[in-house]
Amino acid sequence: MSSVLRDEIFEQPAALERLMRLEEAHIAAVARQLGTRQYAGVVIAARGSSDNAARYAQYLFGTSLGLPVMLAAPSLHTLYAAPMRYRDMLVIGVSQSGQSPDICSVIADARRDGAATVAFTNAAASPLALAAEHQVDLHAGAERSVAATKSYTTQLAALAALVFALADDRAGLASLHRLPDAVEAVLRLEPAIAEVAAAEAAMPACVTLGRGYNYATAWEIALKMKELTYVPTEPYSAADFRHGPIALIARGFPAVLVAPAGATAADLAALTARLAELEAHVIAISDDDAVLRHARHPLRLPVTVDERLSPMTTVVVGQCFARQLALARGVDPERPRGLQKVTATR
Amino acid sequence: MSSVLRDEIFEQPAALERLMRLEEAHIAAVARQLGTRQYAGVVIAARGSSDNAARYAQYLFGTSLGLPVMLAAPSLHTLYAAPMRYRDMLVIGVSQSGQSPDICSVIADARRDGAATVAFTNAAASPLALAAEHQVDLHAGAERSVAATKSYTTQLAALAALVFALADDRAGLASLHRLPDAVEAVLRLEPAIAEVAAAEAAMPACVTLGRGYNYATAWEIALKMKELTYVPTEPYSAADFRHGPIALIARGFPAVLVAPAGATAADLAALTARLAELEAHVIAISDDDAVLRHARHPLRLPVTVDERLSPMTTVVVGQCFARQLALARGVDPERPRGLQKVTATR
Repeated sequence: MSSVLRDEIFEQPAALERLMRLEEAHIAAVARQLGTRQYAGVVIAARGSSDNAARYAQYLFGTSLGLPVMLAAPSLHTLYAAPMRYRDMLVIGVSQSGQSPDICSVIADARRDGAATVAFTNAAASPLALAAEHQVDLHAGAERSVAATKSYTTQLAALAALVFALADDRAGLASLHRLPDAVEAVLRLEPAIAEVAAAEAAMPACVTLGRGYNYATAWEIALKMKELTYVPTEPYSAADFRHGPIALIARGFPAVLVAPAGATAADLAALTARLAELEAHVIAISDDDAVLRHARHPLRLPVTVDERLSPMTTVVVGQCFARQLALARGVDPERPRGLQKVTATR
Repeated sequence: MSSVLRDEIFEQPAALERLMRLEEAHIAAVARQLGTRQYAGVVIAARGSSDNAARYAQYLFGTSLGLPVMLAAPSLHTLYAAPMRYRDMLVIGVSQSGQSPDICSVIADARRDGAATVAFTNAAASPLALAAEHQVDLHAGAERSVAATKSYTTQLAALAALVFALADDRAGLASLHRLPDAVEAVLRLEPAIAEVAAAEAAMPACVTLGRGYNYATAWEIALKMKELTYVPTEPYSAADFRHGPIALIARGFPAVLVAPAGATAADLAALTARLAELEAHVIAISDDDAVLRHARHPLRLPVTVDERLSPMTTVVVGQCFARQLALARGVDPERPRGLQKVTATR
């Protein structure tokens, strides 16, 4: 059975390679122009999957440049006409289609206010691309599925390329060049992922857990689960989860845990052990033995990448899992009900 | 049957009155000292309910002062040792207990970096209060329930008092003084709320929806639902919801919609109508006829308050609803399973 969604998931190594090949030099040039100013912080305007790319960027800009990142509240612009002062900020719009009027409003207001503005889109002639002073093209190719996959991972990679260029981080950029091969290797987990999806097909609800760089991944996997399977799935910071929402966990409750090797792994290994005590069904996406040991369904990442880039390998496992879970539940992931590709909130 | 949780919910008018009586002059003095500096933005560090207070503050600081607000990622400090530059920011810590080590880390790092720091806590001698240059006491009285109620509404009121003082907004401060009476009136809805809870007691999952100032309320009500009833409940911006997660909505799916009169009401009325078409069970917390008309369970707010303060009336309906839903499901809301009052993430 042909599947546009599966094709787009499996195109990700090629899309990431294309982004670096066609856009890296331009991103470096944008970074040189941006780098002549001092910024108090970064404001990112986005919705849906792109909002999760912004969550990822919060950790990148923080660890590499010490810059705090704010997720813009577009309704401050569109509903409240707030007199936002973005002059000292680097203001970034992220949107696959570049069509969302409210994201364009934030960028246009910020540019008028004298802020530096950059658009990350998959549509070079879109209103968002035209509204911003600088634009970065994702080169993901046409994305026909309603559920964003390759546009998400290319957004993450393009943001990482910009931050590494601003920080003059050659090692980071070199890691980015190795990423397509890592994603290719992760895609070979598909049969193992399908088995887990079949085993947990009857789940009534789900939670996804991550921390640090992969907090964004927990959000993005939860979004794919909701879009493709209709299973109510809520993402949590692992840190917040244990102080409240863990009350949800009864025997058999499924939890997708995103915990690659790195700064968050020890904390997430402890959480996995606690969830195992509660007899939760933990599906662990990890290359860390301590995490995998306590999981009911360990999904071992076949390669270890720079933790800062791991959200581009871990999310691919989640994309495949959401698709397989939809199939196991007899839902068509190619035609999500009630969805439209382009968001048009005003 | 005596209920500490119910007592604390019903103490909110008195707690809000006490906050204004005992702390307003001090908040004005803090504002005078803070007001001598120019800020590029605001950084707020918080967890759990206090994080929802920070979400509220994003709209307050934006509309009154044009300042972008960033929710701090404590793990940038505790796990990644990121070299955060907060010098030009107003940095605020919000915590009922003032004990969370990671919130204290953010404030201590920011103060060392030369940022202006303010702690909002219910514990005047707590580590957080001592870490910050300025502190605001919530005067909520001892909160014994694990689920935060009066500490949340007093956090919102104290943040509003600070923003109005910074903006020299006398009308805003006058509205704050009228708030205890409004909350008192809202509490009289309890019998009607209990009826709705009984009718929807069998819900397997739930969503909460809000926008603008009441996006925070959607989050806070969802948190109360999870803490007290164990019903998986996810909060959404009404704007994001219709571009993806609305796929979740099948006939009978319950949705709590927070839509008081104001800038968001027209948009939320349209969403209510759409949800009614999908035969969702909409529980609407509103004083807007267009919203209430299409709701299966209209919960009409008996008073109209300044939209900027409405999160302190709407959330009280949600607190009562979550408690009544727990009782209707035979769950004890006084003793949530697996929870601890003080968060101690490092």
